[in-house]
Amino acid sequence: MGRLTARRRVVRITPDGRTTRPDTLAAEEPMELRVAGTPLSVTMRTPGHDVELAHGFLLTEGVITSLDDIVAARYCDSVDDSGRNTYNVLDVTLAASVAPPSASMERNFYTTSSCGVCGKASLDAVRTKTAFPVLDGDLRIPSATISTLPDRLREAQKVFDSTGGLHAAGLFDAEGELLVAREDVGRHNAVDKVLGWALLQGLIPARGCVLQVSGRASFELVQKAAMAGVPILSAVSAPSSLAVELADDAGITLAGFVRGGSMNVYTRDERILA
Amino acid sequence: MGRLTARRRVVRITPDGRTTRPDTLAAEEPMELRVAGTPLSVTMRTPGHDVELAHGFLLTEGVITSLDDIVAARYCDSVDDSGRNTYNVLDVTLAASVAPPSASMERNFYTTSSCGVCGKASLDAVRTKTAFPVLDGDLRIPSATISTLPDRLREAQKVFDSTGGLHAAGLFDAEGELLVAREDVGRHNAVDKVLGWALLQGLIPARGCVLQVSGRASFELVQKAAMAGVPILSAVSAPSSLAVELADDAGITLAGFVRGGSMNVYTRDERILA
Repeated sequence: MGRLTARRRVVRITPDGRTTRPDTLAAEEPMELRVAGTPLSVTMRTPGHDVELAHGFLLTEGVITSLDDIVAARYCDSVDDSGRNTYNVLDVTLAASVAPPSASMERNFYTTSSCGVCGKASLDAVRTKTAFPVLDGDLRIPSATISTLPDRLREAQKVFDSTGGLHAAGLFDAEGELLVAREDVGRHNAVDKVLGWALLQGLIPARGCVLQVSGRASFELVQKAAMAGVPILSAVSAPSSLAVELADDAGITLAGFVRGGSMNVYTRDERILA
Repeated sequence: MGRLTARRRVVRITPDGRTTRPDTLAAEEPMELRVAGTPLSVTMRTPGHDVELAHGFLLTEGVITSLDDIVAARYCDSVDDSGRNTYNVLDVTLAASVAPPSASMERNFYTTSSCGVCGKASLDAVRTKTAFPVLDGDLRIPSATISTLPDRLREAQKVFDSTGGLHAAGLFDAEGELLVAREDVGRHNAVDKVLGWALLQGLIPARGCVLQVSGRASFELVQKAAMAGVPILSAVSAPSSLAVELADDAGITLAGFVRGGSMNVYTRDERILA
């Protein structure tokens, strides 16, 4: 669709003065996701891989658990002022056996009825139950393999090179081979696109895989890994306290500060061999 | 409240082997915001400055425009298993003259009734109208002043130093003096805390100020700046295409890649003197 980037005039100011030149920006546009015609959510995302994004979002929000749960996904016939399809509204048709998400799903997912959100209770309040508990009790991956993933993900980032401004996520197998990499202005979208791709490929639950992300490991990213049965989540930067709590609870190996040949492993470190 | 960070055991793996040691993590906990007892939103945030966060959120979502619009903000009396207040549920009482937000405000804010979200229409769909149009037609700040802000924001980051993992936002005056800096696991929360602080100080609209952020400039951050009347938004990293469009529309000077003595200015560059 050619909308991964946008051209824009920019004034470059340096100690030597100011110059005007064209610049390449990462595109950001809202995508409205509808289920059977009913608006469910809008996310600000990098256009492209929207069907994967929808699959990944519905998977990690607990609406679907299988590729068969979606029978159709198509862009609405909306047009902009020039008469072109905007490709910003995607309508998904669920299988008859799938309970449609509540219109207030997003709010229910995040809000509780009791006046108390803390510790274990907060985890229960904000997490969605996964259909794919992490097994992979025997999975063992050398730390040297994990250490290669950030650079290999970075190499796969095409848009970053031209814009300098995108988050990335990549799914790797136990040998460290890249299965898929996706970029997005939103870190959660990059992960949803990767996991949606995996669902479309029949690779969910993602047994024996490593999910590598370019930035921090937040609660939400661990939650998404848990919903897809990912056994190892590796991040270039720091995890939060709640990310570690949830990873521990879900049986996920969580590695952070994966830089050079070193890393911090916060949970289930037995899967990573020194 | 001593919950900005959390201690956790971590296994450190380097080419020399593995060691176990304590580590400091950035705390992340959900905060539920209620208005007159009705749950409005839950955000994953770094605990602390929650009253500022609530003020900033309600300001930038268009619910309030003045400090007088909030007559009380207090934590609910929820307790955890140990009988301690969780400090994770904040209840806000609005002045009688303020229209309470719709229970579905978040969804309405982001969803449209028409099957088309694109370009100008998408901006209209996802933006909230500001009560504080940017004026500051005569504001001029030397680029050398702007160039100092990222380092000065970084120096003000207390939690980052111990955890290596937080976003930051800071409000500076036209002379480059730091007015306030806040850190959070969420970039939008850091900005909400800064703008909430400014509202509590009587500094909204933030005429003559520069909002400096530690990372990228997304649509949402420009939106928040616009809602608070901030004339200049400066980011260490790249903006998105929609961020630039909205900044242009709102009359905000948007600078990105503010590093060393150089920067890219995407909109209203006349306010920054080379």
